[in-house]
Amino acid sequence: MEYLTLDAAMLRALELAARGPAYGPNPQVGCVILAPATSPDPTAPRLILAQGWHRGAGTPHAEADALAYAATAGIDVTGATAVVTLEPCNHTGRTGPCARALADGGVTDVVVSVSDPTAIAGGGADYLRSRGVSVTSGLRQDRGEALLRVWLTAVRRGTPYVTLKTATTLDGYVAAVDGSSRWITGAPAREHAHTVRRRVDAIMVGTGTVLTDDPTLTARDASGEPHAHQPLRVVVGRRAVPPGAKVRSGAEYLHLRTHDVAEVLSELAARDIRHVLLEGGPGLATAFLAAHAVDEVHAYLAPMILGEGRRVVGSLGATTLSDAPRLDTVSVERLGDDMLLVARTRPVTAGTPDPSVLT
Amino acid sequence: MEYLTLDAAMLRALELAARGPAYGPNPQVGCVILAPATSPDPTAPRLILAQGWHRGAGTPHAEADALAYAATAGIDVTGATAVVTLEPCNHTGRTGPCARALADGGVTDVVVSVSDPTAIAGGGADYLRSRGVSVTSGLRQDRGEALLRVWLTAVRRGTPYVTLKTATTLDGYVAAVDGSSRWITGAPAREHAHTVRRRVDAIMVGTGTVLTDDPTLTARDASGEPHAHQPLRVVVGRRAVPPGAKVRSGAEYLHLRTHDVAEVLSELAARDIRHVLLEGGPGLATAFLAAHAVDEVHAYLAPMILGEGRRVVGSLGATTLSDAPRLDTVSVERLGDDMLLVARTRPVTAGTPDPSVLT
Ligand SMILES: NC(=O)c1ccc[n+]([C@@H]2O[C@H](COP(=O)([O-])OP(=O)(O)OC[C@H]3O[C@@H](n4cnc5c(N)ncnc54)[C@H](OP(=O)(O)O)[C@@H]3O)[C@@H](O)[C@H]2O)c1
Ligand SMILES: NC(=O)c1ccc[n+]([C@@H]2O[C@H](COP(=O)([O-])OP(=O)(O)OC[C@H]3O[C@@H](n4cnc5c(N)ncnc54)[C@H](OP(=O)(O)O)[C@@H]3O)[C@@H](O)[C@H]2O)c1
Repeated sequence: MEYLTLDAAMLRALELAARGPAYGPNPQVGCVILAPATSPDPTAPRLILAQGWHRGAGTPHAEADALAYAATAGIDVTGATAVVTLEPCNHTGRTGPCARALADGGVTDVVVSVSDPTAIAGGGADYLRSRGVSVTSGLRQDRGEALLRVWLTAVRRGTPYVTLKTATTLDGYVAAVDGSSRWITGAPAREHAHTVRRRVDAIMVGTGTVLTDDPTLTARDASGEPHAHQPLRVVVGRRAVPPGAKVRSGAEYLHLRTHDVAEVLSELAARDIRHVLLEGGPGLATAFLAAHAVDEVHAYLAPMILGEGRRVVGSLGATTLSDAPRLDTVSVERLGDDMLLVARTRPVTAGTPDPSVLT
Repeated sequence: MEYLTLDAAMLRALELAARGPAYGPNPQVGCVILAPATSPDPTAPRLILAQGWHRGAGTPHAEADALAYAATAGIDVTGATAVVTLEPCNHTGRTGPCARALADGGVTDVVVSVSDPTAIAGGGADYLRSRGVSVTSGLRQDRGEALLRVWLTAVRRGTPYVTLKTATTLDGYVAAVDGSSRWITGAPAREHAHTVRRRVDAIMVGTGTVLTDDPTLTARDASGEPHAHQPLRVVVGRRAVPPGAKVRSGAEYLHLRTHDVAEVLSELAARDIRHVLLEGGPGLATAFLAAHAVDEVHAYLAPMILGEGRRVVGSLGATTLSDAPRLDTVSVERLGDDMLLVARTRPVTAGTPDPSVLT
């Protein structure tokens, strides 16, 4: 028997949501179902009847997960309040529409953190209201938006969120004059980069990196074991990927024979990719930066000064200092002897979603 | 009435030492005088009779400061133990030799953290023993060495400790294509750099920086007020420094018309400079790095990607990755939206001191 206020229930729902995978086409969502109010005080704690969260594509949505628990446990949710981190969906996907399930189940109040920006899935609040369910939105919205930042950016804009990863010397080189680049950063930084790979839908490099380094581009743990979730490996460029290239073996692999950044992004969006990790090299990184197609930068820097070599990024057309935008620093972290700066290029874009990439 | 064990007294002495200025020709030294032992247990706490520290060139040494306190307060130090962070000096400088003052004062035991590496000032322990004083050395030596790292490096080697400061974009540029470089880093990073200026004996740039940026090279606080201690300003290069250059006005200024790094270092050593902050630009920084004359790097990095511009350092002759030495990271810090990496190029050098640069 646990009692929570509406606000505490939303914080709980956000915690539950975060248990779901950060990757995949669907957002992380959590749901807490509270017993009908017994006090006229809206801030009075109420009994938790059920809770649930979404565990990834092909599994029940958070609301369905909570309702299923209640059904299994024989708990009546008539007159109950569902506290959900994202507006319940209104479409019949791999799971039925959550809005209908909540109304059918007898839930009379729904409290939402973030409204669903997708055209197909949206409309859940309207549907619920049409069924007489009271819906309020915006509780702990900042936290809800923060949790779903990557997903919201991707679905609002209709193209994947792009994180550019670089591993350089202090003076901005990714390889020495002779092309040697292994390893610039140390083991802790490389392990950290693998934990990021586990959270994305796709890893992308140019053909230059494939031909020079022959990387596997898999997500592995410190002992080299592959992670259960393997992002799609994407190679961009017109040159052929050699038949024996490591990137071809194992998990899914995609070769996009183009130099057109917009084309790359729409190809990925068409494959339900919400978050792509651009791991270089300099040619592709420069193309994406020049196209303003990078949302976040993960700059790993090693305490080395090389003096010359292969530069991390080529010309972006900036001739004076104010031409180069200042990124928004999110964090600065020491990883072994290296450091990691995480920075963003722009705020979350509220825009018209592109129906082609929606859940 | 305060009682301390020998070990705690050394820690106290180290704390006192750190109150003295980090700049200047003399080391930071602290001294605690403990009452004669009354217990056979060498770890028993003993009464503090006096304490002192060195406040910079021209003021009493730590031991003299502590003895002066005892004399003023009428405290008898006969049979007492002096706990000193650095071996007492044995030369008559601006203040008399401390070794003699301790023996004359009746101190019978001296406990030292770090032995004095200087040829002129050294010999204090031998002198004390010749006067029948018991001397032990090496208590908390790691901490003593850490406190005096810069000074010890400079006096052991006979040339100043060189800290290279760089302020760059993430991709290693100190200026854009058109030469604009103000400001790459933000106010918190620039203020931090001023706190470093306050701790050094000299600030050095090449003529290129003077002619491009016309910097003042003074140590100022956040409101622009000059600090009480102003390092010597040093300009290196054959071109003339314009009569109206800001670096000529105010505090001391030195122009070294040479490209010879060793000559620069010995000119500075001859002026009792222990710590010089090399603030660039790329030409002079490259020359010092190529000559392996940099001890420490302070790399301020701003979250900007410029793509092209004036690089922080030029060729050092490294063609493959292993040619570039990996620095030892000391710290990684966030300063506003920027970050600072402090790293060292080499361990403290234990070597034959050059008598020309000694206190
Ligand atoms: N330290 C790091 O973070 C890191 C990461 C990756 C790579 N690297 C290093 O980077 C070096 C490889 O550099 P790279 O620049 O050749 O690698 P790259 O960026 O992986 O590949 C460059 C290729 O990308 C293709 N491409 C696709 N769209 C493009 C566009 N819009 N503009 C330009 N090119 C486009 C082109 O391939 P086609 O010519 O086939 O059309 C181009 O030649 C290697 O030394 C590698 O070790 C370092
Ligand atoms: N962001 C930063 O951290 C930072 C700091 C400082 C400067 N900067 C930027 O750097 C640019 C100036 O670059 P710079 O390279 O001309 O500046 P610099 O390094 O200050 O000056 C170069 C000059 O140093 C002299 N020099 C002395 N010994 C030398 C040696 N062994 N080898 C080569 N030169 C030696 C030469 O002067 P002579 O020709 O007169 O003999 C050379 O022309 C400006 O755009 C400035 O804004 C940026």
